[in-house]
Amino acid sequence: MKYENNCVKDIKIAYIGGGSRGWAWGLMSDLVSCDDISGRVDLYDIDFQAAQNNEIIGNKFNLAEGAKSHWDYKAVKTIGEALTGANFVVVSILPGTFDEMESDVHAPEKYGIYQSVGDTVGPGGVIRALRTIPMMEEIALAVKEYSPDAWVINYTNPMALCVDALYKTFPQIKAFGCCHEVFGTKDFIIKVIDKMLGIKDARRDDIKVNVTGVNHFTWLTEVKYKNIDLFPVYREYCETHFTDGLSEESSDQNWMNKQFRTAEMVKMDLFKRFGYIAAAGDRHLAEFCEANWYLKDPEMVDKWGFGLTKVEWRKLDLSNRLKKSEELISGKQEIKIDVTGEEGAKQIRALLGLHDLVTNVNLPNRGQIPNLPMGTVVETNAAFRSDSVVPVFSGPLPDEIYPLISRVVGEQIAVSDAAKNRDLDAAFRAFICDLNVNISLEDAKALFNEMIKNTSKYLTMYNI
Amino acid sequence: MKYENNCVKDIKIAYIGGGSRGWAWGLMSDLVSCDDISGRVDLYDIDFQAAQNNEIIGNKFNLAEGAKSHWDYKAVKTIGEALTGANFVVVSILPGTFDEMESDVHAPEKYGIYQSVGDTVGPGGVIRALRTIPMMEEIALAVKEYSPDAWVINYTNPMALCVDALYKTFPQIKAFGCCHEVFGTKDFIIKVIDKMLGIKDARRDDIKVNVTGVNHFTWLTEVKYKNIDLFPVYREYCETHFTDGLSEESSDQNWMNKQFRTAEMVKMDLFKRFGYIAAAGDRHLAEFCEANWYLKDPEMVDKWGFGLTKVEWRKLDLSNRLKKSEELISGKQEIKIDVTGEEGAKQIRALLGLHDLVTNVNLPNRGQIPNLPMGTVVETNAAFRSDSVVPVFSGPLPDEIYPLISRVVGEQIAVSDAAKNRDLDAAFRAFICDLNVNISLEDAKALFNEMIKNTSKYLTMYNI
Amino acid sequence: MKYENNCVKDIKIAYIGGGSRGWAWGLMSDLVSCDDISGRVDLYDIDFQAAQNNEIIGNKFNLAEGAKSHWDYKAVKTIGEALTGANFVVVSILPGTFDEMESDVHAPEKYGIYQSVGDTVGPGGVIRALRTIPMMEEIALAVKEYSPDAWVINYTNPMALCVDALYKTFPQIKAFGCCHEVFGTKDFIIKVIDKMLGIKDARRDDIKVNVTGVNHFTWLTEVKYKNIDLFPVYREYCETHFTDGLSEESSDQNWMNKQFRTAEMVKMDLFKRFGYIAAAGDRHLAEFCEANWYLKDPEMVDKWGFGLTKVEWRKLDLSNRLKKSEELISGKQEIKIDVTGEEGAKQIRALLGLHDLVTNVNLPNRGQIPNLPMGTVVETNAAFRSDSVVPVFSGPLPDEIYPLISRVVGEQIAVSDAAKNRDLDAAFRAFICDLNVNISLEDAKALFNEMIKNTSKYLTMYNI
Amino acid sequence: MKYENNCVKDIKIAYIGGGSRGWAWGLMSDLVSCDDISGRVDLYDIDFQAAQNNEIIGNKFNLAEGAKSHWDYKAVKTIGEALTGANFVVVSILPGTFDEMESDVHAPEKYGIYQSVGDTVGPGGVIRALRTIPMMEEIALAVKEYSPDAWVINYTNPMALCVDALYKTFPQIKAFGCCHEVFGTKDFIIKVIDKMLGIKDARRDDIKVNVTGVNHFTWLTEVKYKNIDLFPVYREYCETHFTDGLSEESSDQNWMNKQFRTAEMVKMDLFKRFGYIAAAGDRHLAEFCEANWYLKDPEMVDKWGFGLTKVEWRKLDLSNRLKKSEELISGKQEIKIDVTGEEGAKQIRALLGLHDLVTNVNLPNRGQIPNLPMGTVVETNAAFRSDSVVPVFSGPLPDEIYPLISRVVGEQIAVSDAAKNRDLDAAFRAFICDLNVNISLEDAKALFNEMIKNTSKYLTMYNI
Repeated sequence: MKYENNCVKDIKIAYIGGGSRGWAWGLMSDLVSCDDISGRVDLYDIDFQAAQNNEIIGNKFNLAEGAKSHWDYKAVKTIGEALTGANFVVVSILPGTFDEMESDVHAPEKYGIYQSVGDTVGPGGVIRALRTIPMMEEIALAVKEYSPDAWVINYTNPMALCVDALYKTFPQIKAFGCCHEVFGTKDFIIKVIDKMLGIKDARRDDIKVNVTGVNHFTWLTEVKYKNIDLFPVYREYCETHFTDGLSEESSDQNWMNKQFRTAEMVKMDLFKRFGYIAAAGDRHLAEFCEANWYLKDPEMVDKWGFGLTKVEWRKLDLSNRLKKSEELISGKQEIKIDVTGEEGAKQIRALLGLHDLVTNVNLPNRGQIPNLPMGTVVETNAAFRSDSVVPVFSGPLPDEIYPLISRVVGEQIAVSDAAKNRDLDAAFRAFICDLNVNISLEDAKALFNEMIKNTSKYLTMYNI
Repeated sequence: MKYENNCVKDIKIAYIGGGSRGWAWGLMSDLVSCDDISGRVDLYDIDFQAAQNNEIIGNKFNLAEGAKSHWDYKAVKTIGEALTGANFVVVSILPGTFDEMESDVHAPEKYGIYQSVGDTVGPGGVIRALRTIPMMEEIALAVKEYSPDAWVINYTNPMALCVDALYKTFPQIKAFGCCHEVFGTKDFIIKVIDKMLGIKDARRDDIKVNVTGVNHFTWLTEVKYKNIDLFPVYREYCETHFTDGLSEESSDQNWMNKQFRTAEMVKMDLFKRFGYIAAAGDRHLAEFCEANWYLKDPEMVDKWGFGLTKVEWRKLDLSNRLKKSEELISGKQEIKIDVTGEEGAKQIRALLGLHDLVTNVNLPNRGQIPNLPMGTVVETNAAFRSDSVVPVFSGPLPDEIYPLISRVVGEQIAVSDAAKNRDLDAAFRAFICDLNVNISLEDAKALFNEMIKNTSKYLTMYNI
Repeated sequence: MKYENNCVKDIKIAYIGGGSRGWAWGLMSDLVSCDDISGRVDLYDIDFQAAQNNEIIGNKFNLAEGAKSHWDYKAVKTIGEALTGANFVVVSILPGTFDEMESDVHAPEKYGIYQSVGDTVGPGGVIRALRTIPMMEEIALAVKEYSPDAWVINYTNPMALCVDALYKTFPQIKAFGCCHEVFGTKDFIIKVIDKMLGIKDARRDDIKVNVTGVNHFTWLTEVKYKNIDLFPVYREYCETHFTDGLSEESSDQNWMNKQFRTAEMVKMDLFKRFGYIAAAGDRHLAEFCEANWYLKDPEMVDKWGFGLTKVEWRKLDLSNRLKKSEELISGKQEIKIDVTGEEGAKQIRALLGLHDLVTNVNLPNRGQIPNLPMGTVVETNAAFRSDSVVPVFSGPLPDEIYPLISRVVGEQIAVSDAAKNRDLDAAFRAFICDLNVNISLEDAKALFNEMIKNTSKYLTMYNI
Repeated sequence: MKYENNCVKDIKIAYIGGGSRGWAWGLMSDLVSCDDISGRVDLYDIDFQAAQNNEIIGNKFNLAEGAKSHWDYKAVKTIGEALTGANFVVVSILPGTFDEMESDVHAPEKYGIYQSVGDTVGPGGVIRALRTIPMMEEIALAVKEYSPDAWVINYTNPMALCVDALYKTFPQIKAFGCCHEVFGTKDFIIKVIDKMLGIKDARRDDIKVNVTGVNHFTWLTEVKYKNIDLFPVYREYCETHFTDGLSEESSDQNWMNKQFRTAEMVKMDLFKRFGYIAAAGDRHLAEFCEANWYLKDPEMVDKWGFGLTKVEWRKLDLSNRLKKSEELISGKQEIKIDVTGEEGAKQIRALLGLHDLVTNVNLPNRGQIPNLPMGTVVETNAAFRSDSVVPVFSGPLPDEIYPLISRVVGEQIAVSDAAKNRDLDAAFRAFICDLNVNISLEDAKALFNEMIKNTSKYLTMYNI
């Protein structure tokens, strides 16, 4: 790495995973849009062909209209090769295949358990964690061996438990986890202040928030625009525009489009219940609540204006992306730089000392949320500056939402320990703690065993 | 108070409440059985007649066979009179009447919510807390005014919130809360080691436990008898004698007897789930869990070998006690000293410096359970010595049960704040947090309003 | 206050104190140099004439070359008038007169106690705190009454105890304390990297530091420039250029110039001792150490390349400033805008949401330094954003310096309590804890009494 | 181990060290005086001959008048043999010889540093710790290997750092440290209440105390006798009988007797300064204070009524004990059972579940003193029950003494880390933090190097 005139050259980034394309292309786009950093990106994926395709596409980005810097992409065959000399490591893997995810999400349905995402909590989240954590441990060990000083940016879910595994395995690791769900909530707030206050030009960065909680069940306890406290504004919106989103949704009957769009009704219902702003997509939020609230059955889900993300859809979506990949390589489709709104590139620049940044990330609790257990991974603001990320004090969770979140954190700790110790009995104890697993002990055992079996290919390190 | 030859004379105890008789007679029996303390007991109850009856009965205890000390009982008309000069204050009040309790316990049934006790958590517990906390505040203010140095021993439920209100109102108060549920669990353990190890002569004091959690949802994380770790023994018992109690129960078809006796199956199921010993009666434990586990409907309750305590039964039980009261006064029934197994008298003697005592009590968390919020009332062991009660370090809650208990503590804090601030909106937010209130927001609101209305006579300080 | 096109108009600032001129002029200069904020400044000082003079000078700043915004200055006769409607409150008072300060600094010399500043710790610091804390309490009460939502920026010493008094008196206050000593250390580091690395263009903002400790005894545990860790560089400098500053100093024999300039030798000696960078002027640092280290006698002070700031000099310096004041008013001297390098204006702009800022300030410890007592005022980085200042997690004090700082914090707490309770016995107990008061109990008592007497005019609220 | 009728047979105790006799004989005496425990004691000392002598003497105790139980003593040649099968391990070693101690205590005198004991803090304490900690690490590793479930009772100094090393090396160890200094203070208090209140029959166990602080610098924040608060009594005694002990002392001019007896004036002076009762011998207390207070020079020490324990005296004392050993073996002197007042045997019985015990011991801080760093070894009360020792909550250190003790704890942590990492540079940084090392950095370096050299035989694991 070399500094020259407030620019940094010869940066090396290792990209672990990314074979499923979407995220990788986004980062390529963001990197090439920065004018003060440049270097190389080594791509490592267990699917080497996928990495090679990304290599071709990545290098094409340098030639796209609007490119401001140059990045050399190269597919490599071992994680060690990717990590050696890396200044930054991006981790974005798919733990297992969509077949395992199919079991995670849909196997519980026969017991009346419906999951809108199934990758964070709920039976699906727990099982996914069991197979993901050992993978993250391997990555942490590789970082320890090949690039102990590199900054590791994780995008893999279940976010909190992935970051937790990195730190548990290599406590000196410089890692954090990024998720865009809070940004989405900021966008919703921008819509709210447009409607309520007629403010048209607010940008995400203008919405200053205090973030607290755990990934996908994050909450905002303060929201300001300039010197305006937005809580009263949000409250009035919830009271007067509760079903606005629903009608917008209804107008679009294409089920594929309904996978991710939501009417924000869960978010607003939680505000009405607890007085704080839940800051993730409704699909995620619903899974952290009692099943009877939002996820009792598909009809209820529909009523709340969000969708159950079917794995069938994910498979279709992937095949679309693979097609796009081919077309980008063949030149049939043109490479377009399209800045994502993710903050990876911004964070990298801040870590290089090029600017200061305060944003929300996932880090072990060192006291930023004093009434949650120390060490557990939480999501709050943090200050990014030269080679340093430190949490900003978020404050104790408000009484109203403490019980909701402390329970989740407890479950998270139990899953983490179970996976770390390769202890499926302990995993089952965590499994039955989950609010979605509101079934008898016997049924729970049967479901757990079935789901474990379905993902057993990735659980060989456990004593099954 | 005067010390003479390792005896203490002229102790003054103020007894607040007790009109419902049972507890008061127990303490009378325990006091008169001590040979090293003596003095007077001032009885204050809002039902002065009840206090007068207790005065007569109390004084008769001095003449009963086996009496070892003398205590003068006197009914007084004001709390100030009772407290003035008191060294100890016993608080055992019934907050409201059985009519309010009827609503607490049975009103939710129409929404499919069944409660086995309804005085600690669940919709009943929350509403009961709302009317009890202001009463406890009044008592705390009276203690502050009339006997700020006295030790206050609370027996009123909801225990944790009552003790909390005492400390919140008068932070310098010397108060703690006592509950016999852990003792009952010790008795069960004695039965277990008799069956499993053939140990016949174990007494409660021989069972050394580490207590953690909150009142009525207390857990044992260590149980020793001499140098024997009883966890493996308990585990084997749960596996091999799970339904023993059920058959014992079944043999007794008298529903009144079934109010309190249980088959201990909930306790054992919780052990199988989480690996730690839940240490309260099954009727209490069930209310802290997801409704589907034990309390879905009366049939499920029956299957788990415990009963729903009907308020109808409580009314009958009270009339029996009133009848007994009359007979004791008239002499038709003889006063019998019958040591209760409660520890009130032992604690008083320890506070007087007559012996050391380590036992479980309810106190604000000062770090005895480091992973629960400071200040919230928890139940752990404490060391009682001359004029001093200090918690013994219980340790962080184990991962397995942390999510269960932290959630409860959060709810407890939310109810405490709502009551302190006389804020029914906040109370409703706490109400819908309760695991038993697994119904829609609209139904919850309707139920809450109904229950508030039913107890409104005692909620005049709220802005209803 | 009005937002318009990313500018804020009609801001009201209340300036409390400032009669001694220096600080007030600096802020005037900084404010008028900002192009996106404007408004009015109400000046309140117990010396109304001084405030009026500042009014004239302040208004002249609007006409100075380089002025980018307009600020109306007005002297007001009551603190209430100044505070009413204020968005920001700047507190910069002189507690007492130079006569009291003369006693603070010089009275202990007859016992062999030499102080280089005498306003933070040492016998002078303790006595100064006793008279300052009641003044800060009054200010806090006035803020509570007239402008409870205003941000209060304190510049008064003893900094930590002043901020502490603001929060103790009005816990909801939005206050923080600012001090430039860390900036001075950054300047020294810039000099170091110029000499050692040949870096010429580093600016203060490029030096990213992790700040920890208490005001005037702050330490840097991380220092980065771009991606360069500056600790090894600083270490080498200390080893090879230890006496550089001394020769620079020696060349200037004017004692007045020596009041503040130092050879940075104390700072470097502390680095050699403990391995972390002490980040305040040597004159301050020396007072926090054992007297034998740097302050045994004037010869030793001289050897270490710093000076004992005589109050005689302060008096002379003030008279110079008064003369300058007259000349500015009369027009004999021209008003020149000279940006100070203080961050007051930057902080105000960040609080208005105009930009983000991370910088070091004094705030009660909420966990930013987990191994110091909660609530005590510490100095660390904090994130300034729309209407919000929250500490950035600084981490536990390193083992090496924990004993030095925890001791100081303990003394600080003891003085705070003594002043709050108007308890001179407790104040004396704190006084004898100070490392500089290394004399017999009897001598200490005599000195304390003498110093109390000398400042008694300002201690009427104590029971002297 | 076998339980029979509330007695425990076949206990195995491993005694590590003890060659210097005094402590070993005391424990022999205490064990044989218990009627409900019996078993064997394996003696291991690096001086096998010493162990063999103790074997002979130990076995003779069984025949002494008043023996109530039987214990078989046996000298063994390896620590592994001693530990295998042990239920309890007593550690009482002399780290190095009196030659090293001579350097510890007397080498600093040439720099004007006088130490009254030199085994806990001060230059002597630091150097002693450097050679002792590696020995304790070895013992911890042996316990881990041979008897991981045994209870380890440490008597070796520096107490806090020895217990710390045991836990750092083998975190699952069941260890605590015992020291009689608090008992001595209780005896002094008994004398005080005799004089002031005419109470003649108070026993140590009647004095209920809250203990806080670190070993040899322990403090009492509550002292009760029955229901009497003894603080006002103690205060009056200090004011009216300050020099009583001095005249008692003066009457005995034998310097050997003056080694340990003190006039308690340091203790009382500390009470006058800080308002809490320092609870260790004056010789220890003085070393934790600024040198100018009590230890400036031998004359000052004399004035304060305590003595500097010369190592010359220790050598003479040992030769006396060796002579006594010979006479006990030869039968020239009769074995006499003389209960020591130490609590080792009581603690063993409590750990066996034979009775409950609350007493003060040294344990890692788990929150018993919340304002000291977690993990550092502190001395507070703890509850001893079946196979369990848990700290009783002692509360935050009072403001007045927090600065004194937090500083010591910081030094303790720094020495612990330095020794654990075999890092003499870090050790030197801790050394210069000590209040007694009030000399220049150069002198401190010279002294440190000399002392290290003098004890180098025991520091081979460091990189000298």
